[in-house]
Amino acid sequence: MKVNGVALRPLRALPDGQGIEVIDQRLLPFDLRMRPLRSARDVFVAIREMWVRGAPLIGAVAAYGLALQARRDASDAALRNAAKFLKGSRPTAVNLAWAVDRLLTQVLAVPEAVRADTAWAGAGAIAEQDVQVNEAIGRHGLPLLQAVAARKPGPVNVLTHCNAGWLATVDWGTATSPIYQAHAAGLAVHVWVDETRPRNQGASLTAWELGQAGVPHTVVADNAGGHLMQHGRVDLCIVGCDRVASNGDACNKIGTYLKALAAHDNGVPFYVAMPTSTLDMALAEGVQGIPIEERSGRELTHVSGRTAAGEVVEVQLTPDGSAAANPAFDVTPARLLTGLITEHGIVAADAAALRQLMAGRR
Amino acid sequence: MKVNGVALRPLRALPDGQGIEVIDQRLLPFDLRMRPLRSARDVFVAIREMWVRGAPLIGAVAAYGLALQARRDASDAALRNAAKFLKGSRPTAVNLAWAVDRLLTQVLAVPEAVRADTAWAGAGAIAEQDVQVNEAIGRHGLPLLQAVAARKPGPVNVLTHCNAGWLATVDWGTATSPIYQAHAAGLAVHVWVDETRPRNQGASLTAWELGQAGVPHTVVADNAGGHLMQHGRVDLCIVGCDRVASNGDACNKIGTYLKALAAHDNGVPFYVAMPTSTLDMALAEGVQGIPIEERSGRELTHVSGRTAAGEVVEVQLTPDGSAAANPAFDVTPARLLTGLITEHGIVAADAAALRQLMAGRR
Repeated sequence: MKVNGVALRPLRALPDGQGIEVIDQRLLPFDLRMRPLRSARDVFVAIREMWVRGAPLIGAVAAYGLALQARRDASDAALRNAAKFLKGSRPTAVNLAWAVDRLLTQVLAVPEAVRADTAWAGAGAIAEQDVQVNEAIGRHGLPLLQAVAARKPGPVNVLTHCNAGWLATVDWGTATSPIYQAHAAGLAVHVWVDETRPRNQGASLTAWELGQAGVPHTVVADNAGGHLMQHGRVDLCIVGCDRVASNGDACNKIGTYLKALAAHDNGVPFYVAMPTSTLDMALAEGVQGIPIEERSGRELTHVSGRTAAGEVVEVQLTPDGSAAANPAFDVTPARLLTGLITEHGIVAADAAALRQLMAGRR
Repeated sequence: MKVNGVALRPLRALPDGQGIEVIDQRLLPFDLRMRPLRSARDVFVAIREMWVRGAPLIGAVAAYGLALQARRDASDAALRNAAKFLKGSRPTAVNLAWAVDRLLTQVLAVPEAVRADTAWAGAGAIAEQDVQVNEAIGRHGLPLLQAVAARKPGPVNVLTHCNAGWLATVDWGTATSPIYQAHAAGLAVHVWVDETRPRNQGASLTAWELGQAGVPHTVVADNAGGHLMQHGRVDLCIVGCDRVASNGDACNKIGTYLKALAAHDNGVPFYVAMPTSTLDMALAEGVQGIPIEERSGRELTHVSGRTAAGEVVEVQLTPDGSAAANPAFDVTPARLLTGLITEHGIVAADAAALRQLMAGRR
């Protein structure tokens, strides 16, 4: 996607092959800055501290982390250790493990002397595959927006939660891909952007992305979506996901479940944009089965923003002495989902449909 | 309730009878400051700008606004104008109109010469009645918490949204009254405090109140409640309300509806603490019938907090150019409510029960 008219991705391989550059997403929307990562440890920190976030992006970045390890020590032990280390950076998204394990298998299968170059190429392939997958998700999702536009006047109102945009992937985004493609096709689209407390990925990242792309949008509190749906102001919800269980239960940013409940209560279609790399066929169900990352309460008690003087500062919101809890994800039961938009098409969020989808891809 | 061991109310009549003092709630939790209000216009600004908020409290403060007008000009025309003006300060809560209209009727019935003193005494009576009503709500709600405590070990986990605490009333609070009474009775209570974006009344007011009272509590993002309920970590929800329709549909702070959906989906009891002054028997239903105040998007795009240096500053959260919408309330359909905790006892949220309740009180 473009920023100020210049094509940009949140992840870029450095030309010397000794590192990558990522957008430090903690600084958006006020400062766009790339940071170099030159080791598996750099990559671990960037994922853990959320310079990069979004299930597809952390998968690709983690793959490069393994490739950077292979540049230093490509022995079996070193690579296995690095893979385990990288997979521990965040517990919930399954793409992370998917990308690292896939690359590890590929690299261990070749002689040590060529592992570094194999890993580097393999990480690049994972990144490029993500771009293609997301483009395909957009292609399959686009008709959902076209159908709304065909039956009503005015813009198609899409609600999204968190950031499943191009910043969360290598390009296009997942949930935003149908939106960007609709916008490019000349469809009138308006996006309700959930603020997405506590880290405000909607207010700071999705709003910024959409603004750069010229897509009309309105930021709302996470509390507002139910009211908007009650009053017919949302045509369609599309969100991303961090892990989907084999029965279709979808783990995504905390609060997604509440929006799915409201959509269900108001007859608003609710779609999860899901690269199949996000599907965890080993999990029978998601509500009890998917580990939910508990992050620091400080993400809730403090927030960063820009003062009138233009300085970005962190301020405390809560009284001294009040505890805060910060579960980062929740799981939406499959029964609340209208469908999953995958790179292979839209499928029902149920065990049979997902088994069939994956049976054709092994 | 007490702050640093000293009894305090958010509204205090000045001894000279020429004004009132209110806590400027915009400054909490970092600064506790009383501000004098000496005219109907002062009162209008304090309500409109949310120095005071909470349906019961703005009712009592607005009544004093009418009384202050009566000190200056107690003619029919002046009082009727002031009543209309005060009722326009905020559109959603019905207590405001209830208190002002009740006092206006009372004052117009007496000779002009005694209207000022009648109005002053009448406003005081409304404030005192609020205290008694809230004490009774706590008394009727307490057994709900006792019943949970009797059937499970550990603290009773109550989730509340926004601030329906003593800061939202003259004393006790509505939703918090059963909690304070349970705590006083020695019951182990723990409160999940919804942050309540965009104005953070949970994080800044409810957390502060509970902290001052020594009630264990944890602030969570508005997004978190569904996840907590899915995992059995909420025993009971109690919220306040700004207006309840005759069929039991309950208007409260934006986001309440989402929590009620989650409670319903997980079998968690969901109660609305409702002084009967909040009941609008003239409204057949609430979802379409209750006017929802749209406040400035700036409440969402900017937030105030305290820097590490101890200074309270406002910071911008969203990118320049991103629009924001800010509906301040939503309406929870009666079908999602377990019951209404009133000063006369707990009643079902349905038309027949409410008709019966009010038939006995006319």
